[in-house]
Amino acid sequence: MQQTVLNPSKKEFTTLAIDAMGGDNAPVTTVEGVALAHKKHPGVCFKVFGLESSVVPELKKQGLWGNEKIQFIACSEVISGATEPRLAIRQFKDSSMRRAIQVVADGEADAVVSAGNTGAYMVLSKLLLKTIPGLQRPAITTLLPTKDGKGIVMLDLGANVHVPADVLVQFCIMGQAFAKCVQGVTNPSVALLNIGSEELKGTTVLKEAQSMIQKAGAVENYVGFIEGDEVFNGKVDVIVTDGFTGNVALKTIEGSVRFVAEVMREELKRTWITRLGAFISLPGFRAFKKRLDPRRYNGAQFLGLRGISVKSHGGTDAFGFSCAISVAFDLAKNKVNESLENEIEALQEKLIIAESGVGLD
Amino acid sequence: MQQTVLNPSKKEFTTLAIDAMGGDNAPVTTVEGVALAHKKHPGVCFKVFGLESSVVPELKKQGLWGNEKIQFIACSEVISGATEPRLAIRQFKDSSMRRAIQVVADGEADAVVSAGNTGAYMVLSKLLLKTIPGLQRPAITTLLPTKDGKGIVMLDLGANVHVPADVLVQFCIMGQAFAKCVQGVTNPSVALLNIGSEELKGTTVLKEAQSMIQKAGAVENYVGFIEGDEVFNGKVDVIVTDGFTGNVALKTIEGSVRFVAEVMREELKRTWITRLGAFISLPGFRAFKKRLDPRRYNGAQFLGLRGISVKSHGGTDAFGFSCAISVAFDLAKNKVNESLENEIEALQEKLIIAESGVGLD
Repeated sequence: MQQTVLNPSKKEFTTLAIDAMGGDNAPVTTVEGVALAHKKHPGVCFKVFGLESSVVPELKKQGLWGNEKIQFIACSEVISGATEPRLAIRQFKDSSMRRAIQVVADGEADAVVSAGNTGAYMVLSKLLLKTIPGLQRPAITTLLPTKDGKGIVMLDLGANVHVPADVLVQFCIMGQAFAKCVQGVTNPSVALLNIGSEELKGTTVLKEAQSMIQKAGAVENYVGFIEGDEVFNGKVDVIVTDGFTGNVALKTIEGSVRFVAEVMREELKRTWITRLGAFISLPGFRAFKKRLDPRRYNGAQFLGLRGISVKSHGGTDAFGFSCAISVAFDLAKNKVNESLENEIEALQEKLIIAESGVGLD
Repeated sequence: MQQTVLNPSKKEFTTLAIDAMGGDNAPVTTVEGVALAHKKHPGVCFKVFGLESSVVPELKKQGLWGNEKIQFIACSEVISGATEPRLAIRQFKDSSMRRAIQVVADGEADAVVSAGNTGAYMVLSKLLLKTIPGLQRPAITTLLPTKDGKGIVMLDLGANVHVPADVLVQFCIMGQAFAKCVQGVTNPSVALLNIGSEELKGTTVLKEAQSMIQKAGAVENYVGFIEGDEVFNGKVDVIVTDGFTGNVALKTIEGSVRFVAEVMREELKRTWITRLGAFISLPGFRAFKKRLDPRRYNGAQFLGLRGISVKSHGGTDAFGFSCAISVAFDLAKNKVNESLENEIEALQEKLIIAESGVGLD
């Protein structure tokens, strides 16, 4: 195995790079998020990147200034939500986002977290961290809530609009590596998202991917096609799809959940009787809200890059940002990329053997 | 204009053909559904197709036997959920499903409704009714719930996995015709489902479709790209997508709504206090349930065929089946196909003019 993955085991502690300037309410929420994450993971070192004038007062406010685990690195530029990804590459060399990614590329941190401009963050992450050798394309990967509470890993959520069959097969392996590290599942099951579970249904690309998997025995615990209504029932651990379908599904889920909750709220507020009942059941509604809290599922990884790069929702609060930091911590601690690199090598061997017709039995 | 559309105006009353044998609990639910629809639309004539031994007792039970508006036609065969669509074409010539479609093809009924085998129903509808001239492909079209209660038209929900740009443009026109007839909207707005509202985002096919629409001014009230989380906010009247994405989105919506409702139910049942509160707010929960009741949105059309063919969910009850019948009635009464044929002709003219560079201004 080549030493291509940036190896976090070289250092004694996990170190996380934080872009304090990204997100709707930065650096207030981001620095407060670091404070929460610091409480949760007291052994972790943080490298916080941002404008001195705005970040230092926040660090002081949160009691993090002078803390030996928190290192502040001053930058002179900020990539805003409106910055074109192309410009983010050519200019903004001293931006908090770029420099936070750079320390991961340089092996000085194990993972980077930003709530900033998604397009810019993705291209900069690709540019500076580069794809793991053998992997064709990185994919946006995240955890979605399920009924049993353990969550489901879904990818790709928007990095690749057109995805050929062999890349879908790699996504299966990538999703399984993510599930192992973030959910702690030992042998995660994986399915391809389709419009029917029958073999004949779906796009030619999906059929091709399934046939590749089955022919080569390339993906352990591959369970076949799955439909969109089965995302939440916990039947599988990982769902793989192209970035177009995955993004539509993700947004549709967000919209549906919000829609149902709004209709419920409207109807329960309609009369004083229903309001009274709702008031009495408040503990139930709180528990409901907590179980579906999108902040708890915040943190999507650009999975497949040589360094760990986690994207937080731009509109989240400090707690949500701290959850994204926890995702980065889990991925770094459990060495997602080392495991991924081994798996991808094994996958390639299996595919080559299947291709050449040299069976093992 | 050619007389290609099967013209319901030839007859004095609307006549609907009903496959009484399709669906999980047929013919009990289907015949009861006809009884409900008969009460709602007393002027409508029904042609009910099915096995004499099982349907006649149900018609008698519902007091429909001998009713002058209800005609029973005995068939000797039934297409089950397990019947291969290919077999449904070659065999089962005397099945209730096939004969119900056939009377629409023969101009003896204005629309057909079935809750049976979707694949078989689709191929038989295509085979017997044929596509409207000028239209490339039929699309599965239905109404989804929105916050404001008026619903949103979405197509294609699974008839076409791969859809080229010019077909997407036709789908826009088709969806608008459906919205006019079923929702009663005069100038329905339409959007293409995409993963971002910016022009640069999405698949090449989507970009091509949008550019065709904009260049030719081909679709009135076209509002651009829309994302999956905006399905429910009532911003547009019609959402167009390919059958793969549409089916995934539909199933994801179904799964999300069920998931949220189940989590809510679990949390409210957890303690006697939350149970008490929920009991007091029961009227609110009932109103909530009613607003999201999938039965009220039952009834998807194979839009683009020369006759109206409406598919009911197989698992729905009598009320749900009667809602699908109402959709068929609205489409027939408002002559969806005549309006569609005119619109498609106008669309073709506009596209040809745009293609040839002959502008109107």
